[in-house]
Amino acid sequence: MTAIHHFQTVKNIIHGPGSLEQLGDKLYLLDTPLKQVVLVTQNAMHRLGVTDKIKAQFARRGIAVHMIDNVEIEPTLENIERVFREDVAPFAPDALIAVGGGSVLDAAKLFAVMLTNDTPLKELLGIDKVSNPGKPMVLVPTTSGTGSEVTPNAIVTLPDEELKIGVVSRHLLPTLVILDPLLTLSLPKAITAATGMDAFTHSLESFISTKANPLSDTFALESMRLIAGSIVEAYQQPDSVRARGDMLLGSMYGGLALTGAGTAAVHALAYPLGGKFHVTHGVANAMLLPHVMAFNLDSCAARLKRAACVCGVALESDSDEVAAGKLIEQIHTWTAILNIPQNLREFNVAEEHLAEMAVAASKVTRLMANNPKVLSLDDIQQLYRRLLP
Amino acid sequence: MTAIHHFQTVKNIIHGPGSLEQLGDKLYLLDTPLKQVVLVTQNAMHRLGVTDKIKAQFARRGIAVHMIDNVEIEPTLENIERVFREDVAPFAPDALIAVGGGSVLDAAKLFAVMLTNDTPLKELLGIDKVSNPGKPMVLVPTTSGTGSEVTPNAIVTLPDEELKIGVVSRHLLPTLVILDPLLTLSLPKAITAATGMDAFTHSLESFISTKANPLSDTFALESMRLIAGSIVEAYQQPDSVRARGDMLLGSMYGGLALTGAGTAAVHALAYPLGGKFHVTHGVANAMLLPHVMAFNLDSCAARLKRAACVCGVALESDSDEVAAGKLIEQIHTWTAILNIPQNLREFNVAEEHLAEMAVAASKVTRLMANNPKVLSLDDIQQLYRRLLP
Ligand SMILES: NC(=O)c1ccc[n+]([C@@H]2O[C@H](COP(=O)([O-])OP(=O)(O)OC[C@H]3O[C@@H](n4cnc5c(N)ncnc54)[C@H](O)[C@@H]3O)[C@@H](O)[C@H]2O)c1
Ligand SMILES: NC(=O)c1ccc[n+]([C@@H]2O[C@H](COP(=O)([O-])OP(=O)(O)OC[C@H]3O[C@@H](n4cnc5c(N)ncnc54)[C@H](O)[C@@H]3O)[C@@H](O)[C@H]2O)c1
Ligand SMILES: [Fe+2]
Ligand SMILES: [Fe+2]
Repeated sequence: MTAIHHFQTVKNIIHGPGSLEQLGDKLYLLDTPLKQVVLVTQNAMHRLGVTDKIKAQFARRGIAVHMIDNVEIEPTLENIERVFREDVAPFAPDALIAVGGGSVLDAAKLFAVMLTNDTPLKELLGIDKVSNPGKPMVLVPTTSGTGSEVTPNAIVTLPDEELKIGVVSRHLLPTLVILDPLLTLSLPKAITAATGMDAFTHSLESFISTKANPLSDTFALESMRLIAGSIVEAYQQPDSVRARGDMLLGSMYGGLALTGAGTAAVHALAYPLGGKFHVTHGVANAMLLPHVMAFNLDSCAARLKRAACVCGVALESDSDEVAAGKLIEQIHTWTAILNIPQNLREFNVAEEHLAEMAVAASKVTRLMANNPKVLSLDDIQQLYRRLLP
Repeated sequence: MTAIHHFQTVKNIIHGPGSLEQLGDKLYLLDTPLKQVVLVTQNAMHRLGVTDKIKAQFARRGIAVHMIDNVEIEPTLENIERVFREDVAPFAPDALIAVGGGSVLDAAKLFAVMLTNDTPLKELLGIDKVSNPGKPMVLVPTTSGTGSEVTPNAIVTLPDEELKIGVVSRHLLPTLVILDPLLTLSLPKAITAATGMDAFTHSLESFISTKANPLSDTFALESMRLIAGSIVEAYQQPDSVRARGDMLLGSMYGGLALTGAGTAAVHALAYPLGGKFHVTHGVANAMLLPHVMAFNLDSCAARLKRAACVCGVALESDSDEVAAGKLIEQIHTWTAILNIPQNLREFNVAEEHLAEMAVAASKVTRLMANNPKVLSLDDIQQLYRRLLP
């Protein structure tokens, strides 16, 4: 608690049901004359009529919009580079608007800095490799979720290396975020479940991170409180604006928490599952979360108790260990209610892959360093093995 | 809760004891080449050797520093204009660094936009009158306090009109905030008390504001929790880094809360006391707070209960009214322990002034609109009269 910490965030957050309708009126916040913008989005938004509404907001203001909907789910470096070369760079946008899940937001964040940095994407991978500020961005998440709208990170899949890797730079933060829960009502159940557990993982991992600090703690605890109080309702009653709103705020706070403190072993172990076996990010995290927390328990029981208390699953009078156990139990209960897969065999993972996966996970040192307990290669294999029952 | 809200904040917050030492290393966050900067500060920082240390950090990097320490406490428009004309503009700084209480921070925020807007300060008064972004700023608060480091507001005294008035603009937000509790250890007891109660007033008023929303609530509650847990210790043991750190975070969260939801009648009633009778901002708020809350009680008892619970002075099992009463009682207890003045006669206020003061307060419509209960001129006079026992 006596250490010095750097907290970063975005300047403007507009939130509330229907807030996307204010996009046009709030473009002045970008402090840039806008003649043409690129709108990065995904198919689901066409079906809902969202992209048409956005286009109309720009048309009314005489701003040309070039729309892109060919970013892959959990995009590869190659996909980002191709879309950039063919669809973004030629249009020379003054700003980028992204409306989508973490995949879309991360892609738009990379496009924004690729436009102003004459550097191949490969050389931007890693921490603080981006020299120049990017084009201004508006990020509108449609999952509750990654919190990517408020983080300085963008994640890229490297299929050759069977890994996912991050670009981390303050220049990846947008100028404006719009949190409109109405956009998330259409989320398919399985994606509500997986992305919601991803958000919870961000706050819980940030809360037990070795870099946890008073600011990240505030956001982590509020995030867990909101998600614990709404994830089941959002899954079971997809139209609940109350639950969707709390999930969206909760995932945004999760993003703020992880910006301050970082995620840890759950995310590190998830990356090889995504890179090699195409387990989606949220599912991989949700599967791993209770097991990694059980492994961590003896190194951070007091913190797990505080998390359990804000989630409303333990009492102040419980011992640290009992309360921490209740939290892990609750996570198992959620994964059951939310129908999160429990078996990596569904994704063609077999015992013989574990050694290699463990090596890959152990190389995600940026995240492993945040875990309260050191993981040996053997520990990592044991954890994966829990998911091969 | 279904309304749409706009939340604004700063991009970078560095926090922790000793964090001011990182100032030089973090200047890259301003994304501007720095040849010369203006350092706005106050005498107390010379005595502590703080200004010398800052100058050394700049000298080492070949950046010229022009130091200003002649901003008045709760500066008048005329003082700001004169210091700007004589000391800021001629030096043409690339950026501004402010190390001081709310008076110093507010002045620096105004200088930053006066440098880039060719408009007399008088015409910037009010909401959104500032056209151009200002010069980049680093704000370092030395009181816990106004939260000015994270708000889009700057307050100016207008002696002719015997009033204080705000400039409100997103361009008043700095790029970097440094929260170093070590700078606040030297605060005189009376200023610790008054500025601490000002911070508490920000969060409590934001929490019951008609514009309260989920984001502002998060910050308001966390602010009250931190301040309730540290204000007496900060007063009685000025060297407690723990208490000073929590106060500084608490006042910053108070600033975030008021940015989202606004302050209300307490602040509106305080302005005439400052403008005409030179009661300092914190003292005026602290004196008025319990009385205005007692007046508000029947319009927001449930919210006052939630505040009482996070402050640890009421139980969930208490009724709203009982819990709200306990909070008001606690505020009275604090003002007693902290030796906050209780009698406006000390400041030469007499019964005959009240009618005029009430009119002045009622004109602060920007803040009065946020109060959960409408105040008639008579209500306002009655409230002032409580402080003329
Ligand atoms: N930048 C960060 O800080 C950060 C943090 C965590 C994860 N990530 C990355 O984000 C990506 C995952 O993002 P995600 O979990 O949000 O999923 P996603 O963006 O990959 O979307 C998953 C699926 O949901 C669909 N979808 C999204 N919103 C919808 C809606 N409202 N209605 C209907 N369908 C909708 C998408 O089209 C897609 O098919 C991964 O690449 C992960 O590594 C980034
Ligand atoms: N911008 C905003 O959002 C906002 C909000 C609330 C109040 N305000 C304004 O801020 C001003 C009040 O600011 P304040 O309450 O911080 O007080 P202040 O800046 O007026 O300082 C009060 C006194 O404390 C001294 N001081 C400050 N820090 C010290 C330290 N660390 N050690 C020793 N002495 C120290 C100052 O020199 C001064 O004498 C008022 O003008 C008020 O209207 C602004
Ligand atoms: Fe994640
Ligand atoms: Fe104040």
